[in-house]
Amino acid sequence: MPYELYYWDGLQGRGEFVRLALEEAGAEYMDVARQSDGTAAMMKLLKSKSAPYIPFAPPFLKDGDLIVSHVANILFYLGPKLDLAPEDEPLRFIANGLQLTITDFVAEVHDTHHPLSTNLYFEDQKEAAKQRSADFIEHRIPKFMGYFERVLEQNPDGKKHAVGNRLSYVDLSLFQIIEGLHYAFPRATKRFGERYPALTALHDAVENRANIKKYLASDRRLDFNESGVFRHYPELDQDA
Amino acid sequence: MPYELYYWDGLQGRGEFVRLALEEAGAEYMDVARQSDGTAAMMKLLKSKSAPYIPFAPPFLKDGDLIVSHVANILFYLGPKLDLAPEDEPLRFIANGLQLTITDFVAEVHDTHHPLSTNLYFEDQKEAAKQRSADFIEHRIPKFMGYFERVLEQNPDGKKHAVGNRLSYVDLSLFQIIEGLHYAFPRATKRFGERYPALTALHDAVENRANIKKYLASDRRLDFNESGVFRHYPELDQDA
Repeated sequence: MPYELYYWDGLQGRGEFVRLALEEAGAEYMDVARQSDGTAAMMKLLKSKSAPYIPFAPPFLKDGDLIVSHVANILFYLGPKLDLAPEDEPLRFIANGLQLTITDFVAEVHDTHHPLSTNLYFEDQKEAAKQRSADFIEHRIPKFMGYFERVLEQNPDGKKHAVGNRLSYVDLSLFQIIEGLHYAFPRATKRFGERYPALTALHDAVENRANIKKYLASDRRLDFNESGVFRHYPELDQDA
Repeated sequence: MPYELYYWDGLQGRGEFVRLALEEAGAEYMDVARQSDGTAAMMKLLKSKSAPYIPFAPPFLKDGDLIVSHVANILFYLGPKLDLAPEDEPLRFIANGLQLTITDFVAEVHDTHHPLSTNLYFEDQKEAAKQRSADFIEHRIPKFMGYFERVLEQNPDGKKHAVGNRLSYVDLSLFQIIEGLHYAFPRATKRFGERYPALTALHDAVENRANIKKYLASDRRLDFNESGVFRHYPELDQDA
């Protein structure tokens, strides 16, 4: 039975981290909300007053009867099945720790455009968003990207991968956040390649993998847009 | 060899979710930063330019050579060892999903007092903090707590526990966020017991477990304070 991925239609968002893993592995999956009535089916499940262990929010993955929620949890679950996790058991907890740092970074990216409330429009919190974005560009991008660059540099198996000596879902997720940063903050990331050479090499290597390349060129890969996590609002971007 | 927990001294913070599990299980552990030179040892590790797989931030747990970072990851790792995880393998991913929803909630609690930047003092973002807190009280507390109440109500093994039919680390973490909410927002949580009866019963049951009771009365349990995640700033609280 194919995996069923439940996530909002019309944007990459957090679901994209799961899609990249499924696509790299060539796994069979159904992107439920992109089927007709798919979003209704998703909402029905989320609002169920009787189903056990309902998720809090998308994305979640259905594998038979089991529903796994949260990106890092889905990838922890799928990683070994898709051959995208370290074989070594302890290293799987290292991979999960890195993925959770990516999760935190993604939440901070979201908060650059929604610092006060997800219930207010961007226009209604623009001043706070400018302040938060300036701080994000000055402090948080260097802190997180400097950290991931060190992780690559200090990987005992070489700096081509985040964990161990082969591709894992963490590498795919790093590709995605670098891609997103360039979309959302083109000015702030102008010197990204020179500042973070190992991350840039990883990004380029992932982009050129056969299955990823095919996926990125397909219509299953939506463009970044202003409904997703990474949004390009020129007034929030600045040189760095 | 005892587990080594690395976390800031002087506050409960995110480390407290791990402490509660270790204490409930009666596990041997060392709270490293509370030893002399402990914080220096922690910083040395975080700043290492050569160690493999360094964590991004505390808390992290050292078990022999392995360093596990992020609360949910630490608990996923420790759960089975401390007999605080479901025995059923698929249910462990359910527990992890719930714990990650708790993680998201804790990040939102933090952002009530620091909506613009962790690098600015509370005083310098108080107006934004008031807006974010009002939204948090009106929308986010009911959304998250309503969700967890449903999880208990819809647990096929009964509403005493979040997952399965026995205590897990998720129950302990739910206790901690309820405790923290009451500390930070006494006005907003005045009717908590009536609105969320199953959660309140769970909180009280955890509080009365022998090991937890002993721990809460010990000097290892620090009081909530305004350095932690849950902070009581009266100007951010309001009736709900």
